Amino acid sequence: MAARNAFYAQSGGVTAVINASAAGVIETARKNKRKIGKIYAGRNGIIGALTEDLIDTSKDTSADIRALCHTPSGAFGSCRYKLKSLEQNRREYERLIEVFKVHNIGYFFYNGGGDSADTCLKVSQLANTLGYPIQAIHIPKTVDNDLPITDCCPGFGSVAKYIAVSTREASFDVTSMSKTSTKVFVLEVMGRHSGWIAAAGGLASSKDCEIPIVILFPEIVFDRTKFLARVNGLVKKFGYCSVVVSEGVKGADGKFLSDQGLRDAFGHAQLGGVAPVVANIIKDGLGLKYHWGVADYLQRSARHIASKTDVEQAYAMGKAAVEFAIKGHNAVMPTIDRLSNKPYKWRVGMAQLSRVANVEKMMPSNFISKDGFGITEKCREYLVPLIKGEDYPPYKDGLPNYVRLKNIGVKRKLGKFKI
Amino acid sequence: MAARNAFYAQSGGVTAVINASAAGVIETARKNKRKIGKIYAGRNGIIGALTEDLIDTSKDTSADIRALCHTPSGAFGSCRYKLKSLEQNRREYERLIEVFKVHNIGYFFYNGGGDSADTCLKVSQLANTLGYPIQAIHIPKTVDNDLPITDCCPGFGSVAKYIAVSTREASFDVTSMSKTSTKVFVLEVMGRHSGWIAAAGGLASSKDCEIPIVILFPEIVFDRTKFLARVNGLVKKFGYCSVVVSEGVKGADGKFLSDQGLRDAFGHAQLGGVAPVVANIIKDGLGLKYHWGVADYLQRSARHIASKTDVEQAYAMGKAAVEFAIKGHNAVMPTIDRLSNKPYKWRVGMAQLSRVANVEKMMPSNFISKDGFGITEKCREYLVPLIKGEDYPPYKDGLPNYVRLKNIGVKRKLGKFKI
Repeated sequence: MAARNAFYAQSGGVTAVINASAAGVIETARKNKRKIGKIYAGRNGIIGALTEDLIDTSKDTSADIRALCHTPSGAFGSCRYKLKSLEQNRREYERLIEVFKVHNIGYFFYNGGGDSADTCLKVSQLANTLGYPIQAIHIPKTVDNDLPITDCCPGFGSVAKYIAVSTREASFDVTSMSKTSTKVFVLEVMGRHSGWIAAAGGLASSKDCEIPIVILFPEIVFDRTKFLARVNGLVKKFGYCSVVVSEGVKGADGKFLSDQGLRDAFGHAQLGGVAPVVANIIKDGLGLKYHWGVADYLQRSARHIASKTDVEQAYAMGKAAVEFAIKGHNAVMPTIDRLSNKPYKWRVGMAQLSRVANVEKMMPSNFISKDGFGITEKCREYLVPLIKGEDYPPYKDGLPNYVRLKNIGVKRKLGKFKI
Repeated sequence: MAARNAFYAQSGGVTAVINASAAGVIETARKNKRKIGKIYAGRNGIIGALTEDLIDTSKDTSADIRALCHTPSGAFGSCRYKLKSLEQNRREYERLIEVFKVHNIGYFFYNGGGDSADTCLKVSQLANTLGYPIQAIHIPKTVDNDLPITDCCPGFGSVAKYIAVSTREASFDVTSMSKTSTKVFVLEVMGRHSGWIAAAGGLASSKDCEIPIVILFPEIVFDRTKFLARVNGLVKKFGYCSVVVSEGVKGADGKFLSDQGLRDAFGHAQLGGVAPVVANIIKDGLGLKYHWGVADYLQRSARHIASKTDVEQAYAMGKAAVEFAIKGHNAVMPTIDRLSNKPYKWRVGMAQLSRVANVEKMMPSNFISKDGFGITEKCREYLVPLIKGEDYPPYKDGLPNYVRLKNIGVKRKLGKFKI
């Protein structure tokens, strides 16, 4: 009997290293052809499965699959699309089974965050709920670093490195200008609910390179008076300061400091533009000259300054997922288990998906300094290993030489499906 | 007779490579001790000269001076302060001479853009106007790339590389998301009057990596209807597009699309926030989901992704300035003269400062495509060599190990001076 095929898809917001996980999956599966047949990727995530829009990854050379390790974003396309429960939308699950069956798919690898883990869990239960035998393994990915059990999430380390590096560089800039011009630089970073990414801004300052930084965490209610006092104090002492503000910062009224009123397909508020709001508060309150930046997609696609640790872990998660599948596991997710900080040691672990799906890991409260504006030593010990190491992509004509796969479709065997 | 000392200062907005020019000045001067004595740096630019706040660079080790080559922003502090004319503020020039005289300064190296070239020119005339013998050499520096005569300006190549790389990366991100989410990414870049930096966004797309990009140049009056038609066309064809918008884009009314109404010390309008304006136009006009980013200081301080060509040219300009001084030149500026595109060859040239000061070099009109939204092949040929090569800084704990000099002050010999 021919080995059953695998389905792999990327879900939710992409990262600088999600393709390294894809490479881990594909390369490991290719080495185990007796266990796993073809690897089909979903074009645009789970939508590719629903619409039978499958990509045959065997059409791409090993060199191109290897190049995924240094290419940011989702090579097969991602999506923001959450499967409803079986009760709410049985039609979608029946369609998935139809597609899996006709393409002999017995392995389901889903590369995403908390919402995707929930989708993956539902797929893992198809044998029980609808009688279709399949093994579903979730591969962790999220810049938000908010998945439980795993010590960190692939994607986060590289955003953290980008934000730490950028905050240090912009701080060097503002200190140069501060005598006669800009005194405060405000950088807006991602993070709706938890301040992991904002915390990384704190790494810009270190023992041998002190930089006055104020962090605004979504975990801490914004207090205008305290904030202005802190900025004023730092500018008086150092002549300048940098502010790293999480997009998810809320005021005492529970509202985002900047809420555009839009919502995405998952029902999350669409944010953006808290940096100018904070800058304006500084101007009004202190009359200081400011500049502000919004990193937005740049932070999560910046493969050019990815963390080597992150790239390695992303690859390892993809590889482990396939190994778990071969060993017969279902409804699990490989994890990164930290063994020690100095030297940083970690190993691959395994989590039950039921304990992962829809659980959001918040920053431990002892990672935020008592005044609410900075990170603690404990937080620094946690973060530093995750941004360590550089893993530069190759360049051509001054630009990173990122790969684009052929993404050749698999011949459709079924009728159309409307999502 | 002891060799006369030199004064070096950094002026205006800093860059990722202005310190490489400083290294070029200091290392070359140190090799010519019989001609040039000490190198004093002005703390915060020309203000350091006026207030007799001089830094003795001889207190820093050769290793630290070397490390300037990989450290962004202004190591001695910069300033936005333009000397008025001799007629308008004779007092300031007399003070400069006082300070120069008491510290035996016979060489004046000023590292800046067009406004600074004007200051440097005025200092170069002090022998004639006020009888104080001094040689003033201007060292080109500006991310805006708007100095005349020189083929390009140190600082620009690295911003261009940052914008090209970031645009490519963010475009990879948005194409991944475009099926169900974001379809347009808008990146705001620097450039008040000329679109050099915005043009660099066009490099993100190349023959082997086509990306749909719309550039909004300050040279082209913003036309809402044409712009929306272009964005719509690209999204229909490619499923997504990226927009690179210069902060200086103006509407038909001559007003900046986004003008906060602030002005800096040079009288320039302080801009920021055109990205959200453009994003909103897209939302209103086409109903497409968007993300936007504002690179701001990140783009000009991003030493981590500096162009090797740019670093080398910045150093060469500092070195040449000292060599010109030793040869007895005054009121000149070293230039980068392009000899050929393929292979890229350049040499150091020399320009008379009178031809540089207050002259702004605009983008040639044949660098902008006929429709006004892109760059031409000619522009690409000009830009590509400038972003070529990587020159990574050393890292420590995941962060670039940038140097901070001791910046030890020279003992004051004069009374205070109020600026």
